[in-house]
Amino acid sequence: MEYKYLGKEITYDTLKAMKPEERVELCSELRDKILKTVSANGGHLASNLGAVELTVALLSVFDYKTDKIVFDVGHQSYSYKLLTGRFDRFNTLRQKDGISGFPRITESPYDAFDTGHSSTSISAAMGIARARDLDGKKNQVVAVIGDGALTGGLAYEAINDLGHSKTKMIVILNDNEMSIDKNVGGLSKHLSKLRISSGYISAKQTTESFLQKLGFFGRGIIKIILAIKDFFRFLLYRKRPSMFDDLGLNYYGPVDGHNMNDLIKALQAAKEIRGPVLIHVLTKKGKGYAPAETNPSDYHGVGPFDLETGVTPGKNSYTTVFACTMTELAAKNPKIVAISAAMTLGTGLDNFQMKYPARFFDCGIAEEHCVTMAGGLAVSGYIPVVAIYSSFLQRAYDEMITDCCFMNSHVVFAIDRSGFVGNDGHTHHGLLDISYLNSMVNMTVFSPRDYTDLKRCLAYAIESVKGPAAVRYPRGASPFEAEGPLYTEASEFILPHVVCDYGNDFAIVSTGKICEEADRAMEILKEQGIMGKHINVTMIKPMPAKEIWDLLVGTKYVFSLEEGIISGGFGEALERELQILGFESDVTVFGVRNPIVRAMSQKEQLKYCGLDGDTVAASIKSALSQ
Amino acid sequence: MEYKYLGKEITYDTLKAMKPEERVELCSELRDKILKTVSANGGHLASNLGAVELTVALLSVFDYKTDKIVFDVGHQSYSYKLLTGRFDRFNTLRQKDGISGFPRITESPYDAFDTGHSSTSISAAMGIARARDLDGKKNQVVAVIGDGALTGGLAYEAINDLGHSKTKMIVILNDNEMSIDKNVGGLSKHLSKLRISSGYISAKQTTESFLQKLGFFGRGIIKIILAIKDFFRFLLYRKRPSMFDDLGLNYYGPVDGHNMNDLIKALQAAKEIRGPVLIHVLTKKGKGYAPAETNPSDYHGVGPFDLETGVTPGKNSYTTVFACTMTELAAKNPKIVAISAAMTLGTGLDNFQMKYPARFFDCGIAEEHCVTMAGGLAVSGYIPVVAIYSSFLQRAYDEMITDCCFMNSHVVFAIDRSGFVGNDGHTHHGLLDISYLNSMVNMTVFSPRDYTDLKRCLAYAIESVKGPAAVRYPRGASPFEAEGPLYTEASEFILPHVVCDYGNDFAIVSTGKICEEADRAMEILKEQGIMGKHINVTMIKPMPAKEIWDLLVGTKYVFSLEEGIISGGFGEALERELQILGFESDVTVFGVRNPIVRAMSQKEQLKYCGLDGDTVAASIKSALSQ
Repeated sequence: MEYKYLGKEITYDTLKAMKPEERVELCSELRDKILKTVSANGGHLASNLGAVELTVALLSVFDYKTDKIVFDVGHQSYSYKLLTGRFDRFNTLRQKDGISGFPRITESPYDAFDTGHSSTSISAAMGIARARDLDGKKNQVVAVIGDGALTGGLAYEAINDLGHSKTKMIVILNDNEMSIDKNVGGLSKHLSKLRISSGYISAKQTTESFLQKLGFFGRGIIKIILAIKDFFRFLLYRKRPSMFDDLGLNYYGPVDGHNMNDLIKALQAAKEIRGPVLIHVLTKKGKGYAPAETNPSDYHGVGPFDLETGVTPGKNSYTTVFACTMTELAAKNPKIVAISAAMTLGTGLDNFQMKYPARFFDCGIAEEHCVTMAGGLAVSGYIPVVAIYSSFLQRAYDEMITDCCFMNSHVVFAIDRSGFVGNDGHTHHGLLDISYLNSMVNMTVFSPRDYTDLKRCLAYAIESVKGPAAVRYPRGASPFEAEGPLYTEASEFILPHVVCDYGNDFAIVSTGKICEEADRAMEILKEQGIMGKHINVTMIKPMPAKEIWDLLVGTKYVFSLEEGIISGGFGEALERELQILGFESDVTVFGVRNPIVRAMSQKEQLKYCGLDGDTVAASIKSALSQ
Repeated sequence: MEYKYLGKEITYDTLKAMKPEERVELCSELRDKILKTVSANGGHLASNLGAVELTVALLSVFDYKTDKIVFDVGHQSYSYKLLTGRFDRFNTLRQKDGISGFPRITESPYDAFDTGHSSTSISAAMGIARARDLDGKKNQVVAVIGDGALTGGLAYEAINDLGHSKTKMIVILNDNEMSIDKNVGGLSKHLSKLRISSGYISAKQTTESFLQKLGFFGRGIIKIILAIKDFFRFLLYRKRPSMFDDLGLNYYGPVDGHNMNDLIKALQAAKEIRGPVLIHVLTKKGKGYAPAETNPSDYHGVGPFDLETGVTPGKNSYTTVFACTMTELAAKNPKIVAISAAMTLGTGLDNFQMKYPARFFDCGIAEEHCVTMAGGLAVSGYIPVVAIYSSFLQRAYDEMITDCCFMNSHVVFAIDRSGFVGNDGHTHHGLLDISYLNSMVNMTVFSPRDYTDLKRCLAYAIESVKGPAAVRYPRGASPFEAEGPLYTEASEFILPHVVCDYGNDFAIVSTGKICEEADRAMEILKEQGIMGKHINVTMIKPMPAKEIWDLLVGTKYVFSLEEGIISGGFGEALERELQILGFESDVTVFGVRNPIVRAMSQKEQLKYCGLDGDTVAASIKSALSQ
């Protein structure tokens, strides 16, 4: 496809002056570019395809150089990036040194706020709007939020504040009836009612049917009013009180999110209204690419794929191993229940849900509620397994402590995406989990190194631990998949064990999947005649310091290796516990000092932080020669 | 007052069989006991006085031995404790080895869930209700939540899930138009509308007026129905759609929360209704004690006071010093704005609010929104100071990282109640802040040791730091108040400095107010001929390791001292940074290993953890003699 518009400079004036059919052409170009780029680089597809018209309409009504638009999460910001000066670099999307898959204030002056985690946009936009008011400026502030993100409590807190303060601000509710999976919750039902309350009617239809009902004189007056101020027409949208009105916002909708004219009229009207406005826009995830329209969940976040044939189902991963183990364990123990925060597919719990629907709870994008609810199940004798990505579980930090750990409740946290996550970049890394878990009283922490280890840890955490337990495992696959597990001793797997023992020149104590890098460092150093031993630790809290010391006997130089932030992490805990026992040597800690590691492959991210096998080998050699 | 009911065993049967006037008498006894105990021990007064009738009604309709009642926060649980077997121990309320001021599952089998932090009750109750359903049991599950706690996003996440799942559960909305301060937010306005929508009408009145409107025949039928099933009467409560209905709950109300008959009828009806019900109950904070009715905020959480004269305004504290400094700084710098999470009075920001109303934002019990909103203000060039107690700020752990630190935004966190808090007990300690702040990228952390230091830190954090900064300070007063600051050097206050230097036998490196205990340890050891030096560190991140080393020269035995969890804390950071520089000796870390330290005085809590001057001196002596 040759582009008529994309590639040239696009400003507010360009877009404002476009004819309706030109805007439609521009939308086709955007879809084409997004499809080509995402099929090559991977990325978030379905949500971005659904927001093309909405974005073109937004930038035809709001001036992106003065107005501020905050995209919630950012899964729908590709069109915005393409229209605000990043077309030329768009082929670098989510690549090393390329543009981010999310809004980033360091990437463009037109990205208003960094996003990545859900439900932040209304809060951030309110701060920006309040600053505007204090400055006495008049620019517009818009938050674009999905119906999924609106299930997050943070968004509600913001709406509660907004409805009270009456700050002039526009909330666009991009309602596609999905978060990543099909959306759940009372809100979702409420939106359905609003959606169909008077049938789904476009602005034009509404107006026309309204006009038909009026007599000739009334119609004349209305027509004059419409001619004077186009936005009056907009008032016809308002159908029945919604919970947003109850909370103090002006609710208007629903608007067809793929009808450019309706969108533009609605946004123009919203601009004129005093106080906070919520515009309910209906969109279709995956719009314009048939496979994604049919299976939007499969096309939410994708790796590179063939545009003709579509994506293929993934092979084994830590996630699928977790998922299989869950159903195996649940078959034997009826007390096991599973909880997801709107990520049934992402966490692999779809199979569990099918087999044990009564024992599965998808609570929406509501990590806090998931954890406290799990606390309630646990004090009632059930064993809830809360499966949430490491970075998102940060949302429930306080609830883990006060609603689970303080009561020593047996809640099991299945923490996927620990460590580096690759192309999503720094907002999505799971680099803090060891640190925050280490500071939580009563918490037992497992950090398995491969599939077999993950299975054992999960079974042990569920069946043998008494209080709260966490099992952290990485994104992606283990290289030992095909050939079976690298480490086979079964009985005492939670104890530290020797992976290899070439000598006493040094020792590496590793935890988790980074075990692979430690292995590589061992081999490199061995080739250079530097003979050490490698100990891997699966259960890292309580730290088995005594057992590690036993394995370290005769070794003076000890290095710890983990895929996580150093402060409060595995290495520091190891050093502390060894010191308390009276171990003489220091532990040199290898881990992440600065977690802002941008999009690139997981391997590259390890290398960037000096945690790949080659660099670790070089660092150890250098330390030993001092 | 002699008690006719309290002091005897009280069961569901006792309460159910009581006559209306007997219940009223019981309420008087409860108020008397609560007033006497709280005036002697301190505690949460106004909220507990407001919930007396509600609690008696609850326990007359629900059997506390089989049904489960979850009290949000727990500021209203005293009557429940008195009626469920804790009358005899009630004089030990909030004392060492006494009963807790909050529900505790270890204290009584009738406390359904530990609470303390806001907005957890509906989530916890849902977990308990889901477990009941899985067990096939039929007992009732009730969550009692205030209108303040309902501004927290966690409560909304739970309602969203509850309205969808249709789990049988009763939510009692205890609406007193307050959180700790006057309640804010769109929800509050919505509740006001519900409150006055048809004027405030009691159940009896509603029924009667309804009957008057019907003809003779209709009235006859209704009367028969009422006679058959009392709860039908209850349906008359329903007035107009509320946001709770929108989200899938059955809303009924408002009910006069001090009218025992109305309450009991409403609760009996709620019991019979399938699916989730929300009963809107109106209560008055401080009910029955005139000073508390007039000034409920002053009587929220109180120390011991004279029942005749009421509470007296507090003297200087870290909080008042923070508050004064804020107004001083704000006078000079118009970019400073202040944010509170429903704690204007508690954080001392009431004066700031009066002087700079446009620059002050109370966002409700919504710590997450406060922080993300602050992030929006910061990217717009303002300097938001977010004042939240240490333990409650845990709620915004993720927002601090992703919405402030990752963008290196200049948001200042004023963290009151760091360290031990005394009689509120373990859910309220601020023992994790150093650990979580240390793990946050770009964050600068200050831990001042006295009032002057606090003033300087706050000014420096606001005026000189570029990115996110945190100032943590304790509950209570500094002993140096009257005599002026102990430490006076002004210019380089953020650098570590020598508090006293008696010799090189050892060194203590302390941070924060616990400096006082280190001082005491120094003197004790000096008397025994053990001569060390004491270094205090105000800016603890980035750790001034080089400067500390310079001061440590010639000292082999180094001990760190902090009022916080050891994992990830000050001592571990000190050890790590010294080690990286090549410092030879280890640091022995004194801090908190287990943060579950129950109610007692702050001094006793320090001693309990071995962090008081005497124990620190003994520990150092013992370590040196090994």
